[in-house]
Amino acid sequence: MMNPDLNERIIARGHELFAAIADRKPSLFKRDHWAGKVLDWCMRQEDFKVRMFRFIDVFPSLKSGDSLQRHLQEYFGDLQDLPEFLRWGLRTTGVTGQVGGAVLRRFLARNIRQMARQFIIGETPGEALRHLGRLRQEGFAFTLDALGEATVSEEEAEQYVAGYLHLIQRLREIQEKWPALRPTLPGSGGDWGHAPKINLSVKPTALYSQARAQDFNGSVEAITARLERIYAQVREVGAFLCIDMESHASKDITLAAYRRLREQHPKYPHLGIVLQAYHRETEDNLDLLLTWARKKGLHLNIRLVKGAYWDLETVLADQNGWPQRVFTDKAATDANFEKLAYKILEHSDLCDLAVGSHNIRSIAAVLEMARALRVPEERYEFQVLYGMAEPVRQALREVAGRVRLYCPFGEMVPGMAYLVRRLLENTANESFLRQSFVEGEELDALLADPRELARRKAAQPRPTQPALGLLPPFRNEPSVDFTRPEQRAAFAQALSQVRSRLGASYPLFINGRELTTEKTRASVNPADPGETIGHVSQAGPDEIAQAVTAARDALPGWRATPVPDRAACLLRAAQVARGRIFELAAWQVVEIGKQWDQAYADVGEAIDFLEFYAREMLRLDKPHQPPSLPGEDNRLLYQSKGVAAVIAPWNFPLAISCGMTAAALVTGNTVIFKPSSLTPVIGWTLVELLGQAGLPPGVFNFVPGASREIGDLLVEHPEINVIAFTGSLEVGMRILEKSSKATPGGRHVKKVVAEMGGKNAIILDEDADLDEAIPAIIASAFAFQGQKCSACSRLIVVDALYPALRERLVRAVRSLRLGPADNPANFMGPVADREALHKIRAYMDLAAQEGQILYQGKPPAGAGYHVPITLVEGIRPEHRLANEEVFGPLLALMRAADFDQALRWANAPPQALTGGVFSRSPANLARARREFRVGNLYLNRGITGALVGRQPFGGFGLSGTGTKAGGGDYLLHFMDPRCVTENTLRRGFAPSAGENHANGG
Amino acid sequence: MMNPDLNERIIARGHELFAAIADRKPSLFKRDHWAGKVLDWCMRQEDFKVRMFRFIDVFPSLKSGDSLQRHLQEYFGDLQDLPEFLRWGLRTTGVTGQVGGAVLRRFLARNIRQMARQFIIGETPGEALRHLGRLRQEGFAFTLDALGEATVSEEEAEQYVAGYLHLIQRLREIQEKWPALRPTLPGSGGDWGHAPKINLSVKPTALYSQARAQDFNGSVEAITARLERIYAQVREVGAFLCIDMESHASKDITLAAYRRLREQHPKYPHLGIVLQAYHRETEDNLDLLLTWARKKGLHLNIRLVKGAYWDLETVLADQNGWPQRVFTDKAATDANFEKLAYKILEHSDLCDLAVGSHNIRSIAAVLEMARALRVPEERYEFQVLYGMAEPVRQALREVAGRVRLYCPFGEMVPGMAYLVRRLLENTANESFLRQSFVEGEELDALLADPRELARRKAAQPRPTQPALGLLPPFRNEPSVDFTRPEQRAAFAQALSQVRSRLGASYPLFINGRELTTEKTRASVNPADPGETIGHVSQAGPDEIAQAVTAARDALPGWRATPVPDRAACLLRAAQVARGRIFELAAWQVVEIGKQWDQAYADVGEAIDFLEFYAREMLRLDKPHQPPSLPGEDNRLLYQSKGVAAVIAPWNFPLAISCGMTAAALVTGNTVIFKPSSLTPVIGWTLVELLGQAGLPPGVFNFVPGASREIGDLLVEHPEINVIAFTGSLEVGMRILEKSSKATPGGRHVKKVVAEMGGKNAIILDEDADLDEAIPAIIASAFAFQGQKCSACSRLIVVDALYPALRERLVRAVRSLRLGPADNPANFMGPVADREALHKIRAYMDLAAQEGQILYQGKPPAGAGYHVPITLVEGIRPEHRLANEEVFGPLLALMRAADFDQALRWANAPPQALTGGVFSRSPANLARARREFRVGNLYLNRGITGALVGRQPFGGFGLSGTGTKAGGGDYLLHFMDPRCVTENTLRRGFAPSAGENHANGG
Repeated sequence: MMNPDLNERIIARGHELFAAIADRKPSLFKRDHWAGKVLDWCMRQEDFKVRMFRFIDVFPSLKSGDSLQRHLQEYFGDLQDLPEFLRWGLRTTGVTGQVGGAVLRRFLARNIRQMARQFIIGETPGEALRHLGRLRQEGFAFTLDALGEATVSEEEAEQYVAGYLHLIQRLREIQEKWPALRPTLPGSGGDWGHAPKINLSVKPTALYSQARAQDFNGSVEAITARLERIYAQVREVGAFLCIDMESHASKDITLAAYRRLREQHPKYPHLGIVLQAYHRETEDNLDLLLTWARKKGLHLNIRLVKGAYWDLETVLADQNGWPQRVFTDKAATDANFEKLAYKILEHSDLCDLAVGSHNIRSIAAVLEMARALRVPEERYEFQVLYGMAEPVRQALREVAGRVRLYCPFGEMVPGMAYLVRRLLENTANESFLRQSFVEGEELDALLADPRELARRKAAQPRPTQPALGLLPPFRNEPSVDFTRPEQRAAFAQALSQVRSRLGASYPLFINGRELTTEKTRASVNPADPGETIGHVSQAGPDEIAQAVTAARDALPGWRATPVPDRAACLLRAAQVARGRIFELAAWQVVEIGKQWDQAYADVGEAIDFLEFYAREMLRLDKPHQPPSLPGEDNRLLYQSKGVAAVIAPWNFPLAISCGMTAAALVTGNTVIFKPSSLTPVIGWTLVELLGQAGLPPGVFNFVPGASREIGDLLVEHPEINVIAFTGSLEVGMRILEKSSKATPGGRHVKKVVAEMGGKNAIILDEDADLDEAIPAIIASAFAFQGQKCSACSRLIVVDALYPALRERLVRAVRSLRLGPADNPANFMGPVADREALHKIRAYMDLAAQEGQILYQGKPPAGAGYHVPITLVEGIRPEHRLANEEVFGPLLALMRAADFDQALRWANAPPQALTGGVFSRSPANLARARREFRVGNLYLNRGITGALVGRQPFGGFGLSGTGTKAGGGDYLLHFMDPRCVTENTLRRGFAPSAGENHANGG
Repeated sequence: MMNPDLNERIIARGHELFAAIADRKPSLFKRDHWAGKVLDWCMRQEDFKVRMFRFIDVFPSLKSGDSLQRHLQEYFGDLQDLPEFLRWGLRTTGVTGQVGGAVLRRFLARNIRQMARQFIIGETPGEALRHLGRLRQEGFAFTLDALGEATVSEEEAEQYVAGYLHLIQRLREIQEKWPALRPTLPGSGGDWGHAPKINLSVKPTALYSQARAQDFNGSVEAITARLERIYAQVREVGAFLCIDMESHASKDITLAAYRRLREQHPKYPHLGIVLQAYHRETEDNLDLLLTWARKKGLHLNIRLVKGAYWDLETVLADQNGWPQRVFTDKAATDANFEKLAYKILEHSDLCDLAVGSHNIRSIAAVLEMARALRVPEERYEFQVLYGMAEPVRQALREVAGRVRLYCPFGEMVPGMAYLVRRLLENTANESFLRQSFVEGEELDALLADPRELARRKAAQPRPTQPALGLLPPFRNEPSVDFTRPEQRAAFAQALSQVRSRLGASYPLFINGRELTTEKTRASVNPADPGETIGHVSQAGPDEIAQAVTAARDALPGWRATPVPDRAACLLRAAQVARGRIFELAAWQVVEIGKQWDQAYADVGEAIDFLEFYAREMLRLDKPHQPPSLPGEDNRLLYQSKGVAAVIAPWNFPLAISCGMTAAALVTGNTVIFKPSSLTPVIGWTLVELLGQAGLPPGVFNFVPGASREIGDLLVEHPEINVIAFTGSLEVGMRILEKSSKATPGGRHVKKVVAEMGGKNAIILDEDADLDEAIPAIIASAFAFQGQKCSACSRLIVVDALYPALRERLVRAVRSLRLGPADNPANFMGPVADREALHKIRAYMDLAAQEGQILYQGKPPAGAGYHVPITLVEGIRPEHRLANEEVFGPLLALMRAADFDQALRWANAPPQALTGGVFSRSPANLARARREFRVGNLYLNRGITGALVGRQPFGGFGLSGTGTKAGGGDYLLHFMDPRCVTENTLRRGFAPSAGENHANGG
């Protein structure tokens, strides 16, 4: 595509542009300003930069001088090397007291606000409009973007719409006074001949609080509906509307919304969309858009940018195990930018191009490509972010004339987020601006062909990770990716497939044989108890006896099976599960009412347990050996405890069953698995997985049945060596007590690995970021109806934040969609069964007595076990609701005087499973690390969803026996250590340990 | 001392000697013989050598062709590269069956016997005498040494004496026929003018089965008494007696016996002693001998050798933590040899020298030093081992004329041990013979001055071990070394000191304060219950409540104390204990009847626990971290469980108390320590140790009291989080049951770390080495009266070995000295208390019913709680004696058909604590490793005495909770793991983990 001549012309043009800029520096980099000083330090010290940007981020939430001083001290107090402007601030801390605090606050507030004003054109529409006028006088067009907090509720989405409507009215009044810019270009009038003077940018995710890829159509519809209301007024005043592109998660929704809106008003051309060059799919998206537009005869407007969410996209892909959707190499992005720009310019009859880049090479490339392709001037313009790269925008105004500034306006709090993003862009090592204006990189390097750089980078060898034997290192199973239409389709198809198999009969599985009993039990869909999932044979005392005998008899052979062979069984089961992942997830939707993503995650976790424990056992097979002195050979071995009873819960019906079973099996125990009575059909799928893994008969036995009939039998059986239990506190304590009774003929102390309930709290510190906290609270408290042992059931809010939190949280909860889980649009569905329903409702009644109901939703109609989502406030530590596990969608809000009290309250209940803190105070986060005593503590994120390997899971106190599923010590609980010591000294002669070992000894 | 001229003359003389040897090769190294082939392979392959020597060692015990074939296969079957003579043997295996086995056996027997005959002059006195006559005809004198199995009983010692007496009579008859050798030298007649033709060497440890350094005088007396009987006949026939020097353990006893005998018969000069040049103390020993001899006017005879127990000495020193008593550098030994020889030659008026070396340099040195010092020829002779270094002995006969051959005679079984030792000497890398005759080392190197070589070696830098922080790596506290007179004296003095403090009063210790109660209990000496050790205040419910409150209140502060500070407390306590080690041991002798060495070991183990757990906690303070992906920071921390109750036994009254306490403390728990009612005064010493370690008040509390009054109180107390218990199965199961009851107000699942009893077996395979097995069985079964949970109470003997074992074992047990532990001569003393006495006696009555009493000793007189040491045979797996723990000196012998049955029987009881196997079958040892399922399995050694760090200790089944005291996982049981996960992504920006951490987050 790019010929060498063109590249040379681009470089030449680049040199001209740099010459035009001469020695002008962006104001941000000028060190005589406070902002310049700050950025200078940031670019010199990465550690300082992290602290500074986090401090700027939290700054608007610091309402008092005390709080400000404390944060300053926490963020910077331990640094030796500090800029003078901060050293002064720290000196005042604690010395000058209140007065000094106020002075400091004013000083910092002024400077940080000034810094923000660099990028934000105004805090109010009025202020923004004044500055826009000035800009237009300078010859710059604009597009206006309303900054806002994250939209966590429908009310906030409505406010966002209302803000735009108001803005349009204000602009309509003023635009008449503005002369058009370069109106001499061809067109129907306006800037450069055809462009509306009013140009607005909107963020689609701000328009619908419940947008989710798994509800693709619903999200597109809701967003389009609100866009339509804005667009109606846009059309009325003859303005331009650009739909901004945000992160990958909403990309396809945004593209769909754009197309829908564009098709609905084919004659009104002023609707734009943004494409991101860093996204690997963008070229395909562009091709599709062009084909579609040509077919429909629609004119397009595309703003081409590099993309501003690189860190987020790469981190999310890494964390979820997805392939990277964005180019991980900056040069590849730059190259793609030129490629996409060329393609758009080739179709300039169909599509206008807005060039969103500050990079002189990219700009020069567009200029030269447009010239080469003879693109009319009015078909492309340049866009620059307000406050950044002033020399570039000035040079562009001189060279091209058509420059539009992207102008955000809005309040300080959301403004800080925007500010930090811009500061990061400016100070990143790969920033073109930093390289150009601060580091004085050679122009030839700055203007080099990015294709060439990308090619060179791609040719570099990649580091490889060390493997465990022949196995690659453990990685979590990728999360489901509902942005991919084929995954959405696969889930829907799996649901149909499962539905077609409802009502079958399921046997027991003992000693490698299926066994049908007379007595059966129907498992039903909690969203529609009339729908039977399966008829399941029920084990009684006879079958338990058979299973124990089978497991006991299979023990010697299984125990003697080499560890690599046992591990291989798990890996085979994982492979089978991977092939059936959508189907296995679909069973959970119908049998226990799990939402699509949650159900998929449960199966993924089951696979993780298989893969992780296989590797762990291989590791333990060569354990850390005690030292041996000459003449002795000391070795530590582990052997299985014997026969394991796995007593599983219904809430993670495959993951936890599979995890406990896999741990017991790979360590050489034989297993009797009793699934929950609510999820026996899912339990049966584990039989299928392990059956295909090649376990010998008797090694794994499946005994569904009523707990009250066979639970104690298993627990008290003298031939059961280890009991792995996950479930309620009540049952767990009963198991612990029963299993520790010495039984006649008992040959061992029974080991119990018990994971029980939680009464988990999230603490919101006064400086918590509500944009992040509220979605995390909702997911932690209400996902899968709050039926997770890790779920949040107490929200402890530091007094100062309480009013704001309360208001936003209620709105957000009110916005949730409720209904059966088979519809992916529903956030929350039915609880497990009638018993759960009654128990939860009783707690809801109690809530009204102990506190005040802050919000109670209306459960969906129908026969499902629906309970209303409920927020209760006024709960204090002595209340039952602050101490008893509800296991349902009921969240207790507790208002604490300060962080200290919040921490005390959080630690008060005897359960100690999970907990969370949202805070931007380094000291409080550090204190929570030390003193928030729970098994899994989460800082600035939700408190559910621990991942195997990365977040070993489990609690203590009354939450469990201090074991960590998915962690490095877990398998040890299923084994007994043995130490074998050989005296290698014979006839006064001691060979070295190695030689002795070679002797088969 | 050595002038350069002399060294040059020595080298010149060495060249002459080598020239005289010319190309003659020792017969052993001739490859046309089977032995030569074997040695050739051994010297080329270290692995083959280990196998071959071990095979030769076991060979005489292989009574059948089957057994031989099996061992051949096990020892060599997996080797790719095998000499032809073995390949043939392996081929016959399994193919030719019985007939082939018989052929193979004959072939190997002939060759191995031939190999042994190389070194052993005859299997009977008659055969030996015939060959001695031939040697004398060739011009060589001899000294005769009777090979024998290790002396494990007094009957065997008597047999040894009788053997010598018989030998002397046979020699007396024959000597008249032998003409004297070189009788022309000055003297009163005999070989070289003065030497008796009959010359005998005796091993002193063969003369007394109970010789032990801690009973120094008793050992010297017993040995001297038997020596005297031999010496009487020696004098009668005018013969020479040399007392051989064995390992360091008996060196000083041997020297003392020599001096005593020499003084008792000052006029009879023909008594010799051996000095070993490799021993660092030998020069001092020589100086003392010379001074003593000159003072007493006695003539000495010293055989100077290098020393034959180097491997054993260095291994024992390493394993016991003692400084090396022998030079670890061969050249240093050679240098010392020359130095000692020079000193003896300087005193040739007082002392004859026998030069026991095959090293040409050493021989040349003596020749030249003697010449330089003008030593008369008849004052020194040369001694060479029969069968070794024939060229050297021939050259010496030609050059010096006076050569005596050291001639062992005796049966094949003990002969093999001697053979292996000689083969090792010949094939060691540093062997002068190997270097001279096989490897053809340059003569100049072989003849170089060893002082120079030693100096060069000493100048080389030593490797240093990596340290944990500033702490050196863990090493076990050295064992007591009763070969050192100052340690014997220190123990005796500590006993007097402790005796002077008997009868004092001891308070409780709660919240940092001593507390006296009205009720007290007397602790008494089990060897003399009339002797009160101390009057001890007794805790009741009020004091337990106080202690729990104190521990609970101290918890937050102690938990927050940084790990290095907690670890430092343990290290300080260890330092205090080290300073008081003899006194602390002495308390155990009087309060619970522990023997000196056992008591010292108990205190050493207490110190080990302190040192080891301190290091372990420092290690765990930075545990293996789960992986973190970008944008998240996952950390695993451990926190203490809370308040720990330590319920300790009396049998390791300081070690186990201290171990459980140290583990609980260093992990951040506060402790309530209840000592056994039988050892509260020793318990109090732990208060003193920890008091000096600087623990804050309430962190450690001491509550002696009656178990039936306060045991359940502690166990059921809702504020106790963890219970560390060591004791009986009955009490342990009660604790497990009581502690697992959910208590109202309980805030946690209680953790119980329980170590309970054992029913431990030692298996004797048919090829077991009884010389090693019998002392190990006796120590395992009867040391400290069998009152160890690790003690051996079942001896399972494979049928073929049973008769031999039975006979030797009874004799060995009959030889044990019994009586109070304060007399270090006694091997076994009283049991713990009257209750124990009754229980053990009841089991002894049962023994007579279930089996047949094989041996029952007579308990010593006196008021002590003595029970008779008892062996019972005919016990089968179904008997109570094969299943119930006795905790006393009662050993049940079980005769098993084969190893398979032995293993089944060994695994039969539900206890699974310790076990042992004596076998020289690699396959059976490997099988025991896999299938002998006990917590601590010991191969070819005793089954008690696990060392902290090296042999993590603890059992499973009904023996305990599968915890390993002194092991890497132990501390985890006292802590709960916590996982802290921080979302480090803010505003789409994720710093690296390091940067985030730097931010105090």
